[in-house]
Amino acid sequence: MKTNYADDSLTLHTDLYQINMAESYWADGIHNRRAIFELYFRKLPFGNGYAIFAGLERMLDYLKNFKFSETDIEYLKQLGYQDDFIEYLKTVRFTGTMHSMVEGEVVFANEPLVRIEASLAEAQLIETALLNIVNYQTLIATKASRIKHIIPNDNAAEFGSRRAQEMDAAIWGARAAIIGGFDSTSNVRAGKLFNIPVSGTHAHAMVQAYKSEYEAFHSYARRHKDCVFLVDTYNTLKSGVPNAIRVAKELGDKINFVGVRLDSGDISFLSKEARRMLDEAGFPNAKVIVSNDLDEYTILNLKAQGAKVDSWGIGTKLITAYDQPALGAVYKIVAIENDSGELEDTIKITANAEKVSTPGLKNVFRIINKENGKAEGDYIAMVDENPESEERIKMFHPVHTFISKFVTNFEAQNLHQKVIENGTIIYNSPSVLEMKNYALERLNLLWDEYKRSLNPEEYPVDLSQKCWDNKMRNIQEVRNMVHNMENY
Amino acid sequence: MKTNYADDSLTLHTDLYQINMAESYWADGIHNRRAIFELYFRKLPFGNGYAIFAGLERMLDYLKNFKFSETDIEYLKQLGYQDDFIEYLKTVRFTGTMHSMVEGEVVFANEPLVRIEASLAEAQLIETALLNIVNYQTLIATKASRIKHIIPNDNAAEFGSRRAQEMDAAIWGARAAIIGGFDSTSNVRAGKLFNIPVSGTHAHAMVQAYKSEYEAFHSYARRHKDCVFLVDTYNTLKSGVPNAIRVAKELGDKINFVGVRLDSGDISFLSKEARRMLDEAGFPNAKVIVSNDLDEYTILNLKAQGAKVDSWGIGTKLITAYDQPALGAVYKIVAIENDSGELEDTIKITANAEKVSTPGLKNVFRIINKENGKAEGDYIAMVDENPESEERIKMFHPVHTFISKFVTNFEAQNLHQKVIENGTIIYNSPSVLEMKNYALERLNLLWDEYKRSLNPEEYPVDLSQKCWDNKMRNIQEVRNMVHNMENY
Repeated sequence: MKTNYADDSLTLHTDLYQINMAESYWADGIHNRRAIFELYFRKLPFGNGYAIFAGLERMLDYLKNFKFSETDIEYLKQLGYQDDFIEYLKTVRFTGTMHSMVEGEVVFANEPLVRIEASLAEAQLIETALLNIVNYQTLIATKASRIKHIIPNDNAAEFGSRRAQEMDAAIWGARAAIIGGFDSTSNVRAGKLFNIPVSGTHAHAMVQAYKSEYEAFHSYARRHKDCVFLVDTYNTLKSGVPNAIRVAKELGDKINFVGVRLDSGDISFLSKEARRMLDEAGFPNAKVIVSNDLDEYTILNLKAQGAKVDSWGIGTKLITAYDQPALGAVYKIVAIENDSGELEDTIKITANAEKVSTPGLKNVFRIINKENGKAEGDYIAMVDENPESEERIKMFHPVHTFISKFVTNFEAQNLHQKVIENGTIIYNSPSVLEMKNYALERLNLLWDEYKRSLNPEEYPVDLSQKCWDNKMRNIQEVRNMVHNMENY
Repeated sequence: MKTNYADDSLTLHTDLYQINMAESYWADGIHNRRAIFELYFRKLPFGNGYAIFAGLERMLDYLKNFKFSETDIEYLKQLGYQDDFIEYLKTVRFTGTMHSMVEGEVVFANEPLVRIEASLAEAQLIETALLNIVNYQTLIATKASRIKHIIPNDNAAEFGSRRAQEMDAAIWGARAAIIGGFDSTSNVRAGKLFNIPVSGTHAHAMVQAYKSEYEAFHSYARRHKDCVFLVDTYNTLKSGVPNAIRVAKELGDKINFVGVRLDSGDISFLSKEARRMLDEAGFPNAKVIVSNDLDEYTILNLKAQGAKVDSWGIGTKLITAYDQPALGAVYKIVAIENDSGELEDTIKITANAEKVSTPGLKNVFRIINKENGKAEGDYIAMVDENPESEERIKMFHPVHTFISKFVTNFEAQNLHQKVIENGTIIYNSPSVLEMKNYALERLNLLWDEYKRSLNPEEYPVDLSQKCWDNKMRNIQEVRNMVHNMENY
């Protein structure tokens, strides 16, 4: 099998056209021109009011190790790339500078999450992998946060490995779920790699292997102090819960009877019955744990029906972001060095106004109202602007510009952290649990109206006047160019 | 960063409960009992009439290397597993026997795709990874086949890496797309690892980097003989297509002007206009290539509108299986060795009749009508049955048993290939392109009614009489057991 290249490298994890473009840049001698790319998404997923950024640690690891391996180079030769260009590719490393949101940051549409300043060729070659990483990890952290929002005080466990979209999704999705607020994952490898809590008990197969449910529970309890018994292999209320209670009574203090897990049937009804049976049997502290294709919608409905659930195992719907399995983040060039060595803006125009990119080197600030400690909105400004030094700023809607407000007495937090400087990583990722806590803190800056899962208010992400004027000027330049083309 | 364990191993890529169960089996001395597990899904994805099996090569690689690494063992100790059990885990390898469908096989719901015969503990420990692999790869191969079914004579390229659910999904999804009928992928690493065709040209960024679209096309053409120009950076019809034509005319025979690519806007209208402009300019053989959130539904609609498209780049909707991002394959124990060393059936009962597992060791046969060469259905029989030796077989619906037919003059093809025997891999995977061709051949066995994308006929997957009787007997046994429990 071909996958066993000892030097399989993620550097080749790119779209072919990136290499084609790098070749043209190199052949024309413009590959080392300084270029600025921004990574952002245009629309929040799931109709949610915010997203939780994730993927930075993986990006840094990828960029640190960016180097075509020997077999990569061999393969590129086979594809027909010429020797002179191949020689250049052998020398490519990531030597640029990267600014990024930190993992756990609360982020919004149309604000640069990552800004890459690098040679044109380098910046181009890394696009596919960066998007691949951020698109998935941010999507899952956001989905997890959205689910956790419905059950802030209940335990939430990520259970989705078997339904994840291949192995990387299982582990990086587990990590993203923790960042988004989950308490644990079932994936042991993710536990090891990312130092995050793991959880799990036993499956139906164990009950079947022992044939007798009673024997299976006993056997589990002999070896495991903390016992959650899965009670739906044969019949939840007639067999499973009674057997769990029987074993718990027999073993008494020898075990910690954590509770029972329901994995099928009418969860609302069964959870209430199981709760009643546990209470009547003298186990009011035993938990009812449920799983079975849950997401924020089913959980909300179960809660509304009075389901008695203490802990939730969420699999498929979380790990695949089932109702919207892709975040459409893009990576756009916003400026490039010209013949005179100066940065010049670039823009992409489309018929859809919201898809027109915003040119130039920009920062993103979170504007915090000092009176109430809440966020007024995010403010995108050119890098030479410093809103912190201004008395008041005008924030206006980037599409409907007549919607505007003036803000005074504010703090402007620059959301971009410099994480790589000229190829050297200068950022130490905190632990995943610290990222999770950071996300919770940052969510506290938001009014509840932005956080509700259905029809949240739109959080303002506005351009500075200077940024807006610059965009308009660039659009006009392209219009002139197309007009000249028509007359060609 | 913790992910840099040199010995990061997929053996730990499992749910925690698998290890807990293995511990109980081991402590009770039943871990080496022979157990049979089957892997299958209960419902075809996308409302499709069939699925394309994929994932075998990855499973074999995983099982071959199954061994907890040193840091895995270290981590398991940290989790609190006791030394005696840890010593056992160090010795675990996959020593069982595996039967499987081959990649590219046309498969259906409720038939065992994989059958594992192994020690109870081994069989349990591998569940999560096998499901993780098959669920995703089979899903994407099926989605690709479904899309390709709409455009059998057009070129189809997989373009989804940036939107894939992390990196493994990008590469294994690309491979699955080829198995399902696609012609190429944009992911260079997938091209190298799996020896599959790669394709791609240039992106908007290149046009922006050169500012002048005309310059950018020229630059691309200087270095690349086969030219597809992306024409929608500024204005498709006023700038992009005219510039492409201008460059193609200027360069004439120096390049192979393959065509133009549209990536935004009204594809139906723009493709027709681009076609007309190319024809009028003397390039009737230049292709129109489109991309932009396409799937089988949008393609069908574009075709109905008379869009003039020769080649399709499919990204997000394919690589994430957007409209159903998970296949719900499960892995169920169907038999286990008893105290006397004999195999005994096991069953899982639920309130939902279709979720009750089918116990016992079984084979799956494809019943081919010798008169017309078409498949009559699949036939699941106990391993000691040989339908090939029978004059006629009765096939009846596994839920609605009154639906039945007798088949004579048939060939019964055993769909299971023995791929691992007592831990030794005895199967050589063909090339991915051979798998793709195999899938096409196998689809030819199916009447068109099973293959249409909307409301296909349900292909029969039936149980033999013996298999059915055995299932009913097992259900009755569980009912008796639950009844006895009630009277306890």
